Amino acid sequence: MTQERIKVASLLDKVMSAAEAAQLFEDGMVVGSSGFTKAGDSKEVLPAFADRVAAGEKVQITLLTGASLGHGTDGKLAAAGALKKRMPFQVDATLRGKINQGEILYLDQHLSEAAELLHNGFMKLDLAVLEVAGIEKDGSLIPTTSVGNSASFAALADKVILEVNESVPLDVLGIHDIYMAESYPYRNVIPVVAADNKIGRRTIPLDISKVVAIVRTSKHDSPADIAAPDAKTTAIAGHILKFLEAEVEAERLTERLLPLQAGIGKVANAVLTGFKDSNFKHLTMFSEVLQDSTFDLIDAGVMDFASASSITVSAECYDRVMNNLDAYRDKMVLRPQNISNTPGLIRRLGVIAINTAIEFDIYGNVNSTHISGSRLMNGIGGSGDFARNAYLSIFVTQAASKENKISHVLPMVSHVDHTEHDVDILVTDVGLADLRGLAPRERAIEIINNCVHEDYREELKTYFERACAEVGGQTPHLLGEAFAWHIRLAETGSMKKTVTA
Amino acid sequence: MTQERIKVASLLDKVMSAAEAAQLFEDGMVVGSSGFTKAGDSKEVLPAFADRVAAGEKVQITLLTGASLGHGTDGKLAAAGALKKRMPFQVDATLRGKINQGEILYLDQHLSEAAELLHNGFMKLDLAVLEVAGIEKDGSLIPTTSVGNSASFAALADKVILEVNESVPLDVLGIHDIYMAESYPYRNVIPVVAADNKIGRRTIPLDISKVVAIVRTSKHDSPADIAAPDAKTTAIAGHILKFLEAEVEAERLTERLLPLQAGIGKVANAVLTGFKDSNFKHLTMFSEVLQDSTFDLIDAGVMDFASASSITVSAECYDRVMNNLDAYRDKMVLRPQNISNTPGLIRRLGVIAINTAIEFDIYGNVNSTHISGSRLMNGIGGSGDFARNAYLSIFVTQAASKENKISHVLPMVSHVDHTEHDVDILVTDVGLADLRGLAPRERAIEIINNCVHEDYREELKTYFERACAEVGGQTPHLLGEAFAWHIRLAETGSMKKTVTA
Repeated sequence: MTQERIKVASLLDKVMSAAEAAQLFEDGMVVGSSGFTKAGDSKEVLPAFADRVAAGEKVQITLLTGASLGHGTDGKLAAAGALKKRMPFQVDATLRGKINQGEILYLDQHLSEAAELLHNGFMKLDLAVLEVAGIEKDGSLIPTTSVGNSASFAALADKVILEVNESVPLDVLGIHDIYMAESYPYRNVIPVVAADNKIGRRTIPLDISKVVAIVRTSKHDSPADIAAPDAKTTAIAGHILKFLEAEVEAERLTERLLPLQAGIGKVANAVLTGFKDSNFKHLTMFSEVLQDSTFDLIDAGVMDFASASSITVSAECYDRVMNNLDAYRDKMVLRPQNISNTPGLIRRLGVIAINTAIEFDIYGNVNSTHISGSRLMNGIGGSGDFARNAYLSIFVTQAASKENKISHVLPMVSHVDHTEHDVDILVTDVGLADLRGLAPRERAIEIINNCVHEDYREELKTYFERACAEVGGQTPHLLGEAFAWHIRLAETGSMKKTVTA
Repeated sequence: MTQERIKVASLLDKVMSAAEAAQLFEDGMVVGSSGFTKAGDSKEVLPAFADRVAAGEKVQITLLTGASLGHGTDGKLAAAGALKKRMPFQVDATLRGKINQGEILYLDQHLSEAAELLHNGFMKLDLAVLEVAGIEKDGSLIPTTSVGNSASFAALADKVILEVNESVPLDVLGIHDIYMAESYPYRNVIPVVAADNKIGRRTIPLDISKVVAIVRTSKHDSPADIAAPDAKTTAIAGHILKFLEAEVEAERLTERLLPLQAGIGKVANAVLTGFKDSNFKHLTMFSEVLQDSTFDLIDAGVMDFASASSITVSAECYDRVMNNLDAYRDKMVLRPQNISNTPGLIRRLGVIAINTAIEFDIYGNVNSTHISGSRLMNGIGGSGDFARNAYLSIFVTQAASKENKISHVLPMVSHVDHTEHDVDILVTDVGLADLRGLAPRERAIEIINNCVHEDYREELKTYFERACAEVGGQTPHLLGEAFAWHIRLAETGSMKKTVTA
């Protein structure tokens, strides 16, 4: 690879094995790694570091990333005892277990804000581990399938380890738009006024004197698991599409809608897939992750342009994109996550944001992160960045699950990630609640009538009516009963009053 | 007044009494009124409308404002039964009572978003009632002591009633900066990069064919009630000033700090007053309300410039400002609240935001609006706009109140307005907790050690330790006990286990 991928001759003697590079980690270090929803993560050095610790060395680090890592890396690091603290996002079962046991500290952050914490000097970065497709003559880096926080890590870390991924075509150059916000107090306008605006440079600037190791790899990103739509996700997608059609009918939107953001997963995929056979056209995305459905819409001529921070796709779609970069280069862009997710752009562009909830309550508060108030699921990710600033903030979940023993619409959520103030539309497979312009007591009626599974509707209605009668207030609650359903679930395995198991 | 204040001759025959103008309100109308934290509100027409309804006519409206109104107007309207729905903010005891009884619906909104709801067509505006200092030859309006949502109301209402306030000097012209965000999908950059940037016009554009009435007044704004600092507010202010000094020492900030935002009230005044005898200089504000303390700092030469949406000051300070407009004109600006409070500018400028909490919990979630989960106090106001996007998001409250029968630091807040993700610093009279970079379990220890009143510290510590041991998780909670303190308060009049009354 060398000359073609590493165009700075003086860096060639930094090439070493992953195991050698892993020796550069020291106990207590704060390490920033590339990787956003599996894409563009460290495939050699972090796993080798996990191996080093698993072999018995006592080295614990604080690990920052863009978002989640692939290849079970978070799990390996967690199992080995290599992590003291992790931020800003994760989805790994082993890591989650250690977090919930209190063995690993987890800072669950808005994805736009991890870099702010560093840029503002609230935390120092000792080491960066960055996957790149190549190193340019000027020392700057060509990212691979994600940008994430890599530009900030490259700028702020004391030392840098590069993983050169030879399986990523070098003509990935040009799909990235690297723009760094200035430091306070002289931060300027971020001049994006449409999803397809490119405002920065194509590569990540780097002071090459900071490079301490270069490691070669040819591993692909872990592929996304794309679950096929089922009856519930299809129903949810249908409600959303019908709602958007009505908005066009009411002339609040055009057939081009406004830039779309969709969280990861089945529902997002089902909604986006639904656009393929709709009357909507010339769509755009201003999101954080590009999934298979995005490229399907581009290929179908329904979507004009997609902006995000990563490409997280199936193996089939990965090949399709990588083998046709010239065709996609003008139809997509990957940005740093403090640009893709920055509040001002989301408000300015008027994003339609669709994110998944774990549960929501009768007043429209949403829990995205915790099971029964205490146990972490994944993390808030970008949902708060988008929901708080979107033109339309939509949250989806199934009405009930586990043979309907769990209702996802509740008297009161056990943890709040998005408040009633930030939620416009709630959707379950049962139906859609439009909360725009509604006061809490109106919202409760709209949600109970439209979103709740029938097994729970009557009890939820009774809760609301009794709260109004017995306590009253702007947001009537019976504090002694607000979590009764969660407590019942813990005690009996079901939220239902009479267990039918 | 006529020729001097109303420079469009054709409008002169629209001048009428407040009682006549009040006849233009129809049942079911959506009405937008000027007024932001008492400043620049309708002093004649809304009270006359309240009188009309109090006299027996059945007319109910939805009323939007900038923020709260003065002169007991909200109370009069509420008592008369003239309000069906109210948004986005209020502070009136009578209105609050009706809201909590469920008689008046209240949409508690981020102050930056009320205008968005209208501009995006989610709600239609029938009538606007706007206080102005005068009407220019081109039909445009000179606002008075606030801008609030007046520019949006003028643009979007079908009909407009103007209240010309002859007590406001006409040379108030120039203290306002009227900039309207474009409609989607072509919204542009808001080109403010420093608190003192003026980017718009001095007057509010208006299609004068919409004017249906002009009413004269010479009433002053209701004066702000400035409570003198007490031991607790002085302690809180001291903790904040010491913290900011340490940030300068750590070279994260300079002696100029970053633009300050402070909520209304005693604590904000105490903090700002504290700056007068500090080492900080060349301060700026990027806030929503300018209070007495702002003008004291300007007069003392400590503050260079202040940006907000209203001037809400004591009678003494009101005279000082109005009689010296030439001296203040280059040192302040009043903006529409969807500019003063817009997320992108708050992030871009790096605002240091100081807002008041009703209560917060051991993990850093903040309740700004509700008493014991159900009963509304005032509303979220601009606190969410600022907290979510600030460089530093600081919330303050007293550790305990009512002879220490109420702790304001709790196992779990009874209502969440600001989530753990959005809160950096918590302060009580006891001390300050710096949550930056901390995971929930670390936050709990920091908050319990630094912010809790001594009467509650041991029980809170025990709650946290038992939740960790018995439940575990990222955010350990005992759902069956999380609201025990609120329930105890309702039952016994105290949050303490042993009532000492």
